[in-house]
Amino acid sequence: MNLYEKHKPSISKAIDALHARTFYAAFPEHPAPAIYGETADADGQAAFKNQVGKKFDQLLQTGEQSWGGQEESPYMQTLLNIQYPLFKAETLVANANKAFHTWRKVDVETRAGILAESLERMKKRFFEIAYATMHTTGQGYMMAFQASSPHAADRALEAIAAGVEELNRFPKKALWDKPMGKFNIQLNKEWRAVPKGVAVVIGCSTFPTWNTVPGMYASLITGNPVIVKPHPGAILPIAIVVAELQKVLQENGLDVNICQLGADTFDYMITKELAEHKDVKIIDFTGNSVFGSYLENLKGKEVFTEKTGVNSVILDSVADADKVAANLAFALSLYSGQMCTAPQNFYIPEGGIDTPNGKLSVEEFGQKLADNINGLADNPKAGPFVLGAVQNKKTSERVSKADALGGKVILASRSIENPMFKNARTATPVVLQVEADKKEVYSQELFGPIALLIKTKNTEQSVALAKEMAINYGAISCGAYTTNVNTKELIADEMALAATPVSFNLTGGIYMNQNAAFSDYHVTGGNPAGNASFTNPEFINRRFTWVGHREPVA
Amino acid sequence: MNLYEKHKPSISKAIDALHARTFYAAFPEHPAPAIYGETADADGQAAFKNQVGKKFDQLLQTGEQSWGGQEESPYMQTLLNIQYPLFKAETLVANANKAFHTWRKVDVETRAGILAESLERMKKRFFEIAYATMHTTGQGYMMAFQASSPHAADRALEAIAAGVEELNRFPKKALWDKPMGKFNIQLNKEWRAVPKGVAVVIGCSTFPTWNTVPGMYASLITGNPVIVKPHPGAILPIAIVVAELQKVLQENGLDVNICQLGADTFDYMITKELAEHKDVKIIDFTGNSVFGSYLENLKGKEVFTEKTGVNSVILDSVADADKVAANLAFALSLYSGQMCTAPQNFYIPEGGIDTPNGKLSVEEFGQKLADNINGLADNPKAGPFVLGAVQNKKTSERVSKADALGGKVILASRSIENPMFKNARTATPVVLQVEADKKEVYSQELFGPIALLIKTKNTEQSVALAKEMAINYGAISCGAYTTNVNTKELIADEMALAATPVSFNLTGGIYMNQNAAFSDYHVTGGNPAGNASFTNPEFINRRFTWVGHREPVA
Repeated sequence: MNLYEKHKPSISKAIDALHARTFYAAFPEHPAPAIYGETADADGQAAFKNQVGKKFDQLLQTGEQSWGGQEESPYMQTLLNIQYPLFKAETLVANANKAFHTWRKVDVETRAGILAESLERMKKRFFEIAYATMHTTGQGYMMAFQASSPHAADRALEAIAAGVEELNRFPKKALWDKPMGKFNIQLNKEWRAVPKGVAVVIGCSTFPTWNTVPGMYASLITGNPVIVKPHPGAILPIAIVVAELQKVLQENGLDVNICQLGADTFDYMITKELAEHKDVKIIDFTGNSVFGSYLENLKGKEVFTEKTGVNSVILDSVADADKVAANLAFALSLYSGQMCTAPQNFYIPEGGIDTPNGKLSVEEFGQKLADNINGLADNPKAGPFVLGAVQNKKTSERVSKADALGGKVILASRSIENPMFKNARTATPVVLQVEADKKEVYSQELFGPIALLIKTKNTEQSVALAKEMAINYGAISCGAYTTNVNTKELIADEMALAATPVSFNLTGGIYMNQNAAFSDYHVTGGNPAGNASFTNPEFINRRFTWVGHREPVA
Repeated sequence: MNLYEKHKPSISKAIDALHARTFYAAFPEHPAPAIYGETADADGQAAFKNQVGKKFDQLLQTGEQSWGGQEESPYMQTLLNIQYPLFKAETLVANANKAFHTWRKVDVETRAGILAESLERMKKRFFEIAYATMHTTGQGYMMAFQASSPHAADRALEAIAAGVEELNRFPKKALWDKPMGKFNIQLNKEWRAVPKGVAVVIGCSTFPTWNTVPGMYASLITGNPVIVKPHPGAILPIAIVVAELQKVLQENGLDVNICQLGADTFDYMITKELAEHKDVKIIDFTGNSVFGSYLENLKGKEVFTEKTGVNSVILDSVADADKVAANLAFALSLYSGQMCTAPQNFYIPEGGIDTPNGKLSVEEFGQKLADNINGLADNPKAGPFVLGAVQNKKTSERVSKADALGGKVILASRSIENPMFKNARTATPVVLQVEADKKEVYSQELFGPIALLIKTKNTEQSVALAKEMAINYGAISCGAYTTNVNTKELIADEMALAATPVSFNLTGGIYMNQNAAFSDYHVTGGNPAGNASFTNPEFINRRFTWVGHREPVA
C-alpha cells in the first residue's frame, strides 16, 4: 500500500471537516497514557533532556557552514546549548531550487501521502516536542503539548486537505468541442497547477510549530520546496518536525532538501537574506508588525502574514458577572498573555455593565477581575501551569513598566513561584484603568499580560473604539458580552466590517484565545493583524498558478 | 417568480461549466436574425446613430457636476460628441459608501438574480453595444459584436457563477460540539462573507466591456458597490451595460448607486483620485504596465490587473507550413494586433523550421507570412473586417516608425481602404527580422500590428527567450508549433514555469488570440502581464473576508 492509499481516509475526513466546520480533531489533544502509551510522556521528556547540550544531528540535509544555537529555557533561564547545522542563505536557496524541479513533478496524491505520513511520525514525538516547546517558549505543559503537537498536526493536516481539494477542484484535461455550423472546432486542453517556487516559512518564538506548519504544509502540498526559518529562540520543536519529514522524503527516494531547516542565531540572522533572495517566491511569517509589513512590501513575492493586533473585549450586559470575570481572568493569564488572541483592551460604559443585580461599575468589574486573577495565580495547582513562563525578557520589562503607561493601576503584576522551576521567569497580569479619551495609551499592542480597562460613554462608543483599533492596528480576536439581541447584532456587524471574529458571552471552560482547526479561521486577513487566514482557499491558491495549454484534436 | 428563481437554471449551468471547462456559451455568439430577431441589427445601429451627438441620459444616478465626452470613431476620425454626466471622484465614493451598506446586506441569491437579469437586459442591446464598440475601439463588426456582447456577457455570468459558488462553499452556520469527557462544550458558530468595500473598475480603450464586466460583476456578486471608470475613449459600450443594471436595481427597490458610471474626459481624468481614495478597497484594471504597476503598489487595496506582455510564437517543426503561416497571418492581422493576446515575437531556428519537405528558413517563412498578410489585407471581403481600425493614433505612429527599431523590414505596414468608412485609420502588420542577440529590440511590448521574426541558434534558445520575455515582461499567450513530442513537453513545461498558456499547432479557424469563457483562464496572474485571472477562485475570494462569530449554546 502506498502512502496515499494509507492516508486517503484521513485526508478525506479532513476535507469533509473543512466543509462541515463542526468539531473535528484528527490527533487527540489529551496527553493521556491510554492514547499515547504508558511511557510516552517519560520517553519524550528523556529524549528532550538527552538533546540538551548536544548537536541536533537528525536532519538529513548536508553542506552546513557551521553549528550553533542560542535557545534559552524561560523556565530555567539557562541556555539549552543545542547546536543546529547553520547554512548560508545562498546554499539553502540553491538546494531548494534543485529540489523544486523534483517536487513539482510529484503528483498531488503522492505529495499528500508523504506529508500525511510525516504527521504520523511527528505524532510519535508529540511529548518530546511538548517539552521542547515548554523550554523554548515558556508555555505550560498542557498548552505546550496541545498547541505544538496535536493541534499543530491538525492545522498541518488541514493545509494538506485544503491543498488536495484545491488542486483537484478543476479538471486536469478537457475536450473543448465548439459547434461552428458545418463542423466543430475541437481542442484538447490541459491545465497545470504550477507551483510558484522556493518558499520560506519564518517562525515565531511563542508558537514554533502551530504557527509554522500551516504555511509549511500548504507550500509543500502545492509543490513548492520549503525552507523553514525558525525563530532563533525556538528551534527545537520545529526541527523535530522537519527531521521527521526529511526521513519520509528519503525513504521515498526524494530529495531531502524539499524541506530544509534554515536555523540561525541571534548573532547572525539570515531572515532578510532569504526573504529578499530573487528566487524566493513565497514567504509565510508570524511575528511583529514592523517586520511583517516590510515583508508584505517586498516585490515579486506571495507573502502570508500573521502580525500583531489590539484585541478588544466589549462589556455591555452579562447574565453572571462572576463567571465573566473568571473567564476573562483566565483568558488574560493563559500563557501570561503571550497569545496573539489574548484580550488587551476592555471597554466598559461609564454607567456600568448591566447585570441581573443592577449596574456593575468599571471599578467593581476591575475588582472582580483582579480577584479572579489573584485567585488563579495563587492557586498552586493552577497558577504556575496556566501562566507558564515569559518567553522574552522584553515582555517582562514591558509588564514591569506598565504603570508608566498613564493609567490607574488596578492590579500590579508580580512574579509567582513555579514549584518545578525555581528560576522561571513569570509575570501575572497587570490591570490598568484608562479613560476613553486617552487613546494614545491603548492604541497599540502591549504584548504580554497587560489589561486596560477603558471607561467609555456607552456601548456604542465601546464598539466604535474596538472597531477603530481593529481597522487601524489589527485584531485577531474580540470578546463581547451582551444579553441584548440588538446590541449583539450591532457588535457582530461592526466587528465583521473590521474583519474581526467575535466570541460572544463565553463563560466556563472555553476562552476567546482558543482557535480550533477545521472550524475557526485563524486571522481573517482583512485587517492589519495579517493578510492571510488558516486555512481558507486563498491560503492555498496563492501558492500556485493555473496554466492551461491547448492543441487541436489530431 | 423572483429574479433568483428565474435565473437559477442559467447560474447552475454556468457553475457546472466552470468545472467542466468544455465549450459552453450562455449567449449565442452569432449575430443571426434567427437568434436575435430580424430587426435587431438595424435597430441597434439606429439606436447607436441616434445617440451620437446627444447626452447619454439613461443613467439613474444623479448629482453630476457637468456633462462631457471626447470619444472619437477610429472609422470616421470624428468626435462622437456624446456627453456623459461627469461626477467628482468624492461624490462617486460618497454615493458608493452609502450604497455599500444596502448592497452588502442583500443575500447572495438576490444579488445573483439581479445581476443575471441585468445581462438579459444587456442582451436586448447587444447590437447597439456592438456599434458603440466599433466606433470607439475600431474593432471590426463581427469582433465588436462577439467580444463586447455575448462573449462579455458570458464572462460576466462566469463571474456571477463563481461568486455564487464561493459564497456558498462553506456553511453559514454550524454547531461546534466538543466532547470534554464528562460534558461537551457546544458553540453556535456563524460565518459572514464580508465584502471589502468600494470597488473601482478601470476600463481600457480596446475592449470596453469584455475587460470590464468580469471585475465589475465579481465585485458586485460579493457585495461590493462598484464605480465603473471607463477609458475616456470608449465609454458608450459599458455605459449601456451600467444603465441596464441601474434599471434592474431601481425596479427592485435598491440604490442605483450600487453601480455607478464614473466617466471622465482626457481633459480631466479622475482615475488616480478614485484609486487613491482611502475608501476605495478594490481596484480592477486593464491597461498599460506603468499605470497597472502603480496601482498594484497602492497600500490597503486589493488590486486586480491585466497589463501588457510580450507574446511569443515558437516555431520548431510543422506538418503544413502554409497552413501555419495563414493562421499566424490572421492572428497578427485580427483587430490590427490590438489584442492583448496577439503574437509579437516569432522565434525561428537559424537552421530553419522542420517541414515534411525539408527545412524552411527564416527568410522563407517570413515570405510566406508576408504573402498571407498581403492576401488577407487585399481581400476586400475579409481584410477591412478582420483588420478593423486603429484605436489610438499613437499605435499608428508606432507602426509607422517600426523600421527604425533596428530589424530588417520583411513587410512594411500600409493603409488599406475600408469600403464603408473612407476615413478609417488602418494599418496592416509590419514584419521585421531581428537577430537573437539584439535583445533590446524585442524585449518590449510593441502594441499594434508589429511582428518580429527572431533568428535563434535552435529551438532550445527559442524556448529560453520566450520564457525569459514572459518572466521579465509578462505574456498572456504563446503559440508553438512542433511535431516532436519531447519538444512539445519542453515548451509546455518551460512556459508553464513562466505562467504562460501555450496554444500548440493551431491551424484553420482558431487562433492563439482567442480566449473562451468557462474554459480558458484569461491571464494567469503568474507573470508581469497581470496579477489576476478570469475567473479563478482568487478572482472572487480576494473581494471579501470570511469572519466567524461564535457563542455558547444557550
